[in-house]
Amino acid sequence: MYSFANDYSEGAHPKILEQIVKTNLEQTGVYFSDEYCSSAETLIKKACGKPKAKVHFFMGGTQANATIISSALRSFQGVYSSALGHINTHEAGAIEYGGHKILTLPDEDGKLTAQQIEFSHQLYLNDPKKEHWVQPKMVYISQPTELGTLYSKQELTALATVCRKYDLFLFLDGARLGYALTSPNNDVSLEDIADLCDVFYIGGTKCGLLFGEAAVIVSPLLQADFHTIMKQHGAVLAKGRLLGLQFETLFTNNLYEQICSYGIKQALRIKNAFQAKGISFYTNSFTNQQFPILTNEQYHILKQKYVMGVWEELPNNRLAIRFCTSWATKESEVSALLADIATL
Amino acid sequence: MYSFANDYSEGAHPKILEQIVKTNLEQTGVYFSDEYCSSAETLIKKACGKPKAKVHFFMGGTQANATIISSALRSFQGVYSSALGHINTHEAGAIEYGGHKILTLPDEDGKLTAQQIEFSHQLYLNDPKKEHWVQPKMVYISQPTELGTLYSKQELTALATVCRKYDLFLFLDGARLGYALTSPNNDVSLEDIADLCDVFYIGGTKCGLLFGEAAVIVSPLLQADFHTIMKQHGAVLAKGRLLGLQFETLFTNNLYEQICSYGIKQALRIKNAFQAKGISFYTNSFTNQQFPILTNEQYHILKQKYVMGVWEELPNNRLAIRFCTSWATKESEVSALLADIATL
Amino acid sequence: MYSFANDYSEGAHPKILEQIVKTNLEQTGVYFSDEYCSSAETLIKKACGKPKAKVHFFMGGTQANATIISSALRSFQGVYSSALGHINTHEAGAIEYGGHKILTLPDEDGKLTAQQIEFSHQLYLNDPKKEHWVQPKMVYISQPTELGTLYSKQELTALATVCRKYDLFLFLDGARLGYALTSPNNDVSLEDIADLCDVFYIGGTKCGLLFGEAAVIVSPLLQADFHTIMKQHGAVLAKGRLLGLQFETLFTNNLYEQICSYGIKQALRIKNAFQAKGISFYTNSFTNQQFPILTNEQYHILKQKYVMGVWEELPNNRLAIRFCTSWATKESEVSALLADIATL
Amino acid sequence: MYSFANDYSEGAHPKILEQIVKTNLEQTGVYFSDEYCSSAETLIKKACGKPKAKVHFFMGGTQANATIISSALRSFQGVYSSALGHINTHEAGAIEYGGHKILTLPDEDGKLTAQQIEFSHQLYLNDPKKEHWVQPKMVYISQPTELGTLYSKQELTALATVCRKYDLFLFLDGARLGYALTSPNNDVSLEDIADLCDVFYIGGTKCGLLFGEAAVIVSPLLQADFHTIMKQHGAVLAKGRLLGLQFETLFTNNLYEQICSYGIKQALRIKNAFQAKGISFYTNSFTNQQFPILTNEQYHILKQKYVMGVWEELPNNRLAIRFCTSWATKESEVSALLADIATL
Repeated sequence: MYSFANDYSEGAHPKILEQIVKTNLEQTGVYFSDEYCSSAETLIKKACGKPKAKVHFFMGGTQANATIISSALRSFQGVYSSALGHINTHEAGAIEYGGHKILTLPDEDGKLTAQQIEFSHQLYLNDPKKEHWVQPKMVYISQPTELGTLYSKQELTALATVCRKYDLFLFLDGARLGYALTSPNNDVSLEDIADLCDVFYIGGTKCGLLFGEAAVIVSPLLQADFHTIMKQHGAVLAKGRLLGLQFETLFTNNLYEQICSYGIKQALRIKNAFQAKGISFYTNSFTNQQFPILTNEQYHILKQKYVMGVWEELPNNRLAIRFCTSWATKESEVSALLADIATL
Repeated sequence: MYSFANDYSEGAHPKILEQIVKTNLEQTGVYFSDEYCSSAETLIKKACGKPKAKVHFFMGGTQANATIISSALRSFQGVYSSALGHINTHEAGAIEYGGHKILTLPDEDGKLTAQQIEFSHQLYLNDPKKEHWVQPKMVYISQPTELGTLYSKQELTALATVCRKYDLFLFLDGARLGYALTSPNNDVSLEDIADLCDVFYIGGTKCGLLFGEAAVIVSPLLQADFHTIMKQHGAVLAKGRLLGLQFETLFTNNLYEQICSYGIKQALRIKNAFQAKGISFYTNSFTNQQFPILTNEQYHILKQKYVMGVWEELPNNRLAIRFCTSWATKESEVSALLADIATL
Repeated sequence: MYSFANDYSEGAHPKILEQIVKTNLEQTGVYFSDEYCSSAETLIKKACGKPKAKVHFFMGGTQANATIISSALRSFQGVYSSALGHINTHEAGAIEYGGHKILTLPDEDGKLTAQQIEFSHQLYLNDPKKEHWVQPKMVYISQPTELGTLYSKQELTALATVCRKYDLFLFLDGARLGYALTSPNNDVSLEDIADLCDVFYIGGTKCGLLFGEAAVIVSPLLQADFHTIMKQHGAVLAKGRLLGLQFETLFTNNLYEQICSYGIKQALRIKNAFQAKGISFYTNSFTNQQFPILTNEQYHILKQKYVMGVWEELPNNRLAIRFCTSWATKESEVSALLADIATL
Repeated sequence: MYSFANDYSEGAHPKILEQIVKTNLEQTGVYFSDEYCSSAETLIKKACGKPKAKVHFFMGGTQANATIISSALRSFQGVYSSALGHINTHEAGAIEYGGHKILTLPDEDGKLTAQQIEFSHQLYLNDPKKEHWVQPKMVYISQPTELGTLYSKQELTALATVCRKYDLFLFLDGARLGYALTSPNNDVSLEDIADLCDVFYIGGTKCGLLFGEAAVIVSPLLQADFHTIMKQHGAVLAKGRLLGLQFETLFTNNLYEQICSYGIKQALRIKNAFQAKGISFYTNSFTNQQFPILTNEQYHILKQKYVMGVWEELPNNRLAIRFCTSWATKESEVSALLADIATL
């Protein structure tokens, strides 16, 4: 059985592990005060074109989301999110545990639009009882989205514009950001994201690290006291250097790009195979998640040999299935899968 | 400069790293559903003599403390702790962030006593307005304590007895538990702890792992829904196997004991050297933290060559200094330190 | 200008005030320990047919909702509510402030259905990743609903059945409960509510009191420590007797019924007048809130003489308008309004 | 049995009730948008000499404390308080429920001193790990204190100075403020308090109202969004005018002063009687709470006829007893008590 169930079934890219082993016996500062963290911060700020940003390292996405949102909102403020947003679904209420309401909006192909924010926020502003509503203060989006789709530069710019108009922070969850940056369908660079968002993170866990997400705090309003807020969330790793040196390695010699473009390549092979077979998709993704719509029968055939995710049960005995690829996906296993798809 | 500042300045014990490297390309279940986690859980439950316990893995101590306390207390309940307790000092208010008051009591040599709990809890129970007080529901202790001291089996039994009398959960923070278990001054076994406490954790970060604490949930009352509570705290590691295989290794072939008894050995060499010099101690520790009381002058001499922690400024230009040792402490550096102590 | 904007524009029913004045100089117990509170509790439990219930008094609805939900849910649990539910809209995020997610479902004429809960909860239970979701543990409904509609006995029984099936608490917000109990369209008695719900409250603020809501805790699971939880929410009134004696008066000589049936009578006069004019309604209410759909022109005519609420702007220059009546609504002003409606 | 147990055993001063009755049938704005609230705000701001302050009305002290502290602190910030502070004892953890740590300091005669804050805050600022501490951001004091003692103008000025030096908000809980302002031992005016504090409240519940505390938000930093924060805490009274008209009455024709100076007069009669008898006091109070130290025997004699509070059990069979007086205390009952004290 080979698993395409997700992009974190294996350990780390060998170059990452190599660095951890190589530096193992060094004595360094603790709690992110070491030189690997400094170096990684410098590399990331350079890649973002933001010398005044601050970079902080998290061990995972839920932790990053909860801490960042908590750092930006006061107790009576809430965050707009697509109902599909990860913070609204599979984080066990971490945002509400921190006291904040998620103001959900329906998604359009996984995305929020500037028009939605404009409309919803006008509704809020014009409500005669708005003092009795949660005050919206942030917009949360993911790139790529939970459905593998991408915000275009134009869409992201429109969102940033409406956020600035209404003094809302724009926060981009980049748990799979590498697979956006290296998608053939993408026109948004890391610099664009850093220009348009107030805060975002560069995912490592799903892009070749053992674990880790690098949060880039662009807005000066969000930079103060961030380490303390992290500590309060249990998010300060004692041997913080582990995160620093992983990200230092990831941002050296284009490793991040290499890792993710490999994952994309394998995903597109799978996409093409399903398309060739005339099988349609739940969403038109050009990133490392593919959502073909299979009949129950087709699914059960593939299930003999592969582990996949069942995204949604659809009418007429059909299933939206999720295939994930990554740096670790074996080319030979994809080839075997392609052959099996061809015979469906 | 060699650092005795803490027990987490280096990476992981080589055997730990070796396992991470060796298993790197395996595909496993995620979020702790893998076989390494199962195996580690089995080994730990066996070592504790508690087949019905549940074991959960955390990335660090603050995260473990906040999650465990949140899992045990309802919103209006609080936890007794020594004022020195880690949850009351260097965790940036993580427990209060979760909504719970820490009911602080003065420490006696770093410890809480059963008498203190008895007295304080009687005060609470007899207060005619006790419905307007936070309801105490848990006792938090550390073994070893923040001052390196140890609860004896008799002291721990007395605490457990008073906890059971008043229906209080007893929670033991074992961030440095290995250095208690292997201390020559210790009479409390892992089985004893599992018998006496409702929940505790076995520290890995300071005892040879890259990171990790293994929480042992003994009380059936605290076992339900624990994974969800962890997720809400951002404490579910995607590649959870990293924790499973580190703890599996730690609990194989007595590695935990080997690692910690080595640290203890180095600590006692330092203790003996200060004693031989007639230097007194802030606390009489037989674990891997030693707190000699130095004059400013003595401190500045050692500071030329070693990094140490300043625990507290004392009257008459004296300082309580903290030396930490671990699996990674170099025997030769300790020897050099001993020579330097001798010439103070 | 006469106001039909809401049902709390005036003070209290004269009999209520009379009692407050009459007892003013008596010395009584504080924090609800007085005899008026005991007496009110006894009367309410009798009216509900629940001798083992506990009754607690709140100063307002948001306070009652937040405290009751907090008393019932553990930190990782959430509450199903219609998106229109008061807790989801005009309470400034009080529930999320307490750490709990509101699991919103679309309303059907202001109501939740047993089928919705069945479907949503099955979705939750069958999600392979349900450990990463907020755990649903309560259903929140209002009687009458925010739209003035009523759950029938059959509907409420179906909801209670599905709640019991899935071990969910059923919580009924009765801020305007008196206007349900006295509606000609109602078949649900107070005893029915007490049989079917785990906890609910009987609204006083909108039904003739200066302020006050009486929470009836039917489920023994929710009774312990309730006073402490109230105190933690700032909901324990020092001179608690004020609530006790208001509710004692309300539940003596059918005052609650008298007050609310008067309000209903005036509301139905207004309803009939709009119907006679051929004006349609946003919702078919038989309670003290009426929602006629007016043209902008009609609204501006009435606005010269009356204060009303704008519930929603509708297409084609129409508005859903809210008229509220109460014990204090003047019959003569309603007559004047009827005349003005007739000439629209 | 006559009760001296507290200052809220009766209803409201007759002039207050009279106004509630008189205005009962008026239709007014809701949620504090009425003219009585505006008028009360104007009168209070004038009495404080602070035309730019904002005034908000609460139903009780715990509610006021929790809301004000929540409005001022971000999630990782805490508040200094005496261990005796009401927020630290009888509020069931309301502050921690809101996520904030109370940083307790020992009291000196019920008070905090500027030196304590200076010392504690320096300790915080100089801690090399201060990023892992809760960040102190507010100082909470009571005037009079829980022990009936008073801050002098010099002491309060010193506290304000240290708060400004370290950018800490100074918050004064004035639940019994009227009894400070009218104490013969007092040199701090309402204007002084408004000059020196960032936020404070003027207690009504214990000073003649049915209920109510008027918070004066002096610092512009704390004024924004306050109504929303109140709503989130369930602290927005629907018929808010009840608070407005009570405070309007209290601040008209010196009623507040009249009420409280009467209470003080009765308290000092009791104080003098105990002094004349050679009975000592737990604390030297010149406000409406008196704490004589009685033998068990003396207490049991008085207990035949009077209800008092037992403040603390002292060694040698002695008790610190609390006597409270108020606007409602009967002169004749005090006379009877004096006679009984004389015969002890």
